[in-house]
Amino acid sequence: MTKIEMLGLAAKTASRRLSLASPETKNKALTEIADALERESDRILCENKKDLDAAKENGMSSAMLDRLTLTEARIKSFAEGVRQVARLPDPVDRLIERIERPNGLIIEKIAVPLGVIGIIYESRPNVTADAAAICLKSGNAVILRGGSEAIHSNYAIVNIMRAALENSGLPADCVCFVEDTSRESARELMSLTQYLDVLIPRGGAGLIEAVVQNSKVPVIKTGVGICHVYVDESADIQMAARITSNAKCSRPSVCNAAECLLVSEAIAERFLPAVKKLLDEYNVELRCCERSAQIIGADAIPAVDEDYDTEFLDYILAVRVVSGLDEAIEFINQHGSGHSEAIVTASDKAAERFLKEVDAAAVYVNASTRFTDGGEFGLGAEIGISTQKLHARGPMGIRELTSTKFMVRGSGQTR
Amino acid sequence: MTKIEMLGLAAKTASRRLSLASPETKNKALTEIADALERESDRILCENKKDLDAAKENGMSSAMLDRLTLTEARIKSFAEGVRQVARLPDPVDRLIERIERPNGLIIEKIAVPLGVIGIIYESRPNVTADAAAICLKSGNAVILRGGSEAIHSNYAIVNIMRAALENSGLPADCVCFVEDTSRESARELMSLTQYLDVLIPRGGAGLIEAVVQNSKVPVIKTGVGICHVYVDESADIQMAARITSNAKCSRPSVCNAAECLLVSEAIAERFLPAVKKLLDEYNVELRCCERSAQIIGADAIPAVDEDYDTEFLDYILAVRVVSGLDEAIEFINQHGSGHSEAIVTASDKAAERFLKEVDAAAVYVNASTRFTDGGEFGLGAEIGISTQKLHARGPMGIRELTSTKFMVRGSGQTR
Repeated sequence: MTKIEMLGLAAKTASRRLSLASPETKNKALTEIADALERESDRILCENKKDLDAAKENGMSSAMLDRLTLTEARIKSFAEGVRQVARLPDPVDRLIERIERPNGLIIEKIAVPLGVIGIIYESRPNVTADAAAICLKSGNAVILRGGSEAIHSNYAIVNIMRAALENSGLPADCVCFVEDTSRESARELMSLTQYLDVLIPRGGAGLIEAVVQNSKVPVIKTGVGICHVYVDESADIQMAARITSNAKCSRPSVCNAAECLLVSEAIAERFLPAVKKLLDEYNVELRCCERSAQIIGADAIPAVDEDYDTEFLDYILAVRVVSGLDEAIEFINQHGSGHSEAIVTASDKAAERFLKEVDAAAVYVNASTRFTDGGEFGLGAEIGISTQKLHARGPMGIRELTSTKFMVRGSGQTR
Repeated sequence: MTKIEMLGLAAKTASRRLSLASPETKNKALTEIADALERESDRILCENKKDLDAAKENGMSSAMLDRLTLTEARIKSFAEGVRQVARLPDPVDRLIERIERPNGLIIEKIAVPLGVIGIIYESRPNVTADAAAICLKSGNAVILRGGSEAIHSNYAIVNIMRAALENSGLPADCVCFVEDTSRESARELMSLTQYLDVLIPRGGAGLIEAVVQNSKVPVIKTGVGICHVYVDESADIQMAARITSNAKCSRPSVCNAAECLLVSEAIAERFLPAVKKLLDEYNVELRCCERSAQIIGADAIPAVDEDYDTEFLDYILAVRVVSGLDEAIEFINQHGSGHSEAIVTASDKAAERFLKEVDAAAVYVNASTRFTDGGEFGLGAEIGISTQKLHARGPMGIRELTSTKFMVRGSGQTR
């Protein structure tokens, strides 16, 4: 058995016990974890410093360094996140459907944990605590495989969580950690069909695509967001400008930020100058089609084809004038990543067509794409935003980390 | 573009139109298909004869020949199946959840079609009509890739369905067919991530495993059933014998048939002779552990380890005496395929532990494993029985061929 296989077996074994744990036991463990993370924040910060020193030595960019940096306040914040997960209603053992058959069989469809969840992620050490908490709450063991740049921070957080699990009577192996951060360990996880029920990559498009392409374990694809705002000819210009600016600028590094603005040609001449004013406050670079460049003038940068298929994650926006709703829907279905898409319009008919015909996890009328988020949807903590259609689509909370089981009670029925 | 890519694009394009079709349009198309299949049964039978002649020449076994053979009655029966699918409630556009947020956003979670479904299957030409009907009803385009042995029959059925689709105003490409039955075409389908939303293999364990191992398109694993009946010490002996015999013998070639009998040692001496009497009526071969062989006597064949991991699909049953419930649960979780598992017991406590702790799509108390079936569960037609935990588990009907979409209606909200 390889080291990863041993981890898999340990996690599977722990998952059997965890799947039978009461909501109270799980919540107690989560509270213990939150308390321990706060209590031992010095230890975490000390290990985090090792990662930061190494990162600086390797010339990591300041944006990346910021993601990697922990502070007392950030630790408090993710400990509080763990407590919030504890307070959510338990997603396991829910009765989803009950069927009584003419032959007397009673069939109940019940929510059960998935089993063992693998998570491959990058940089941010807070994912270590967030992801583990969501998995535990939904009765799943988790195998965490973070990036080398955060290895010391992650290891410290995991060890604190494992000790807290044992203190509360659950197996430490409910949270397993892959110390080896080589590509080989990721590849091995992707082949661990015997023990892993699902693999969730969290990180950049490159990581996610590599996992989707290579994993034999079922994958839930999360997070790549090439999101559009389409401004229809009937749109309120001020509303459309505010929504566009918010979707682009409120946090450009996240997946629900807009990357492309589509404008109906009937409104382009009036709308584009208005939105430019708001975007200029953030120095947004506008990569424009020929028509929009004419309207925007000297500041417009000519777009190349690739700009319409890029997740910039930055203060850059692709802009394109379209003939109207039909072209907008077609363009989005071709270039979007199936994440979040918005129309700004005063026409109910246009709104309903957009909602129905655009193929994405979340479709918006007259609101910013930035709302695609477990918390903003009122679903509680999320483990990611699924952009695939199988199993879960959109923000994935604790309920999306469960499967189902048919429990059938009879009195000797045969077929 | 390769031929398969062209099929993918055609199916994707058709799926956009189909996803917007009304329930009436879809049901009209299904009825047209059923009528056309019956009307043109001579043509289907004539093409089927070509397949049968070739199969006989290649020395196909009589069991396989039987699966391949179509008759007037069988065509009538699958045409009737298509009509039954038409009568099911439409699974698309269902409101699954509605959330009103404090900021005024109205969030609705709505059922939508998956998009394009690929099906790779073997032998039985009735799958061609069944699978296409279920996909159409749930608003999905389908790409069918059957086996070479049924190529003429499948092609005839597909062409009749495509013509009927056009007659009822839907694109013929809602049902696409891969004429090339080489391994290469299957491999290409498994890489068609751009157009295929899910791939469902239907057939033997070898086919299913090959698809799971090689597909980059998300797969739903169906059908392999290594199912157990566990006879607890408190079981009613006659009930346990009837259930065992039914689970093994009523149709041994299907996935929900039992392959292994586990017996508590406390009841083995009384139970095994009783069940043997019923199994002898079907000449079931018993592959026994040491202890059960002692009780059964001369007819027992000594089991080898492999017998406990084999889907016999035949009148063969592995038999094993276990110390009690704990060992039975552990053994099933280790050797079962996660399909259907049954306990026969008079103890509520044992029953509830079995239901909770055995990890399978369907778990039974005092009933035969043979009930795991969309029809028997009252769910209508099924496309297969999922043995994985993601997306769908157990019998997969039309609802399981849908995904969801969040539709969000606002009035200018930004975050």
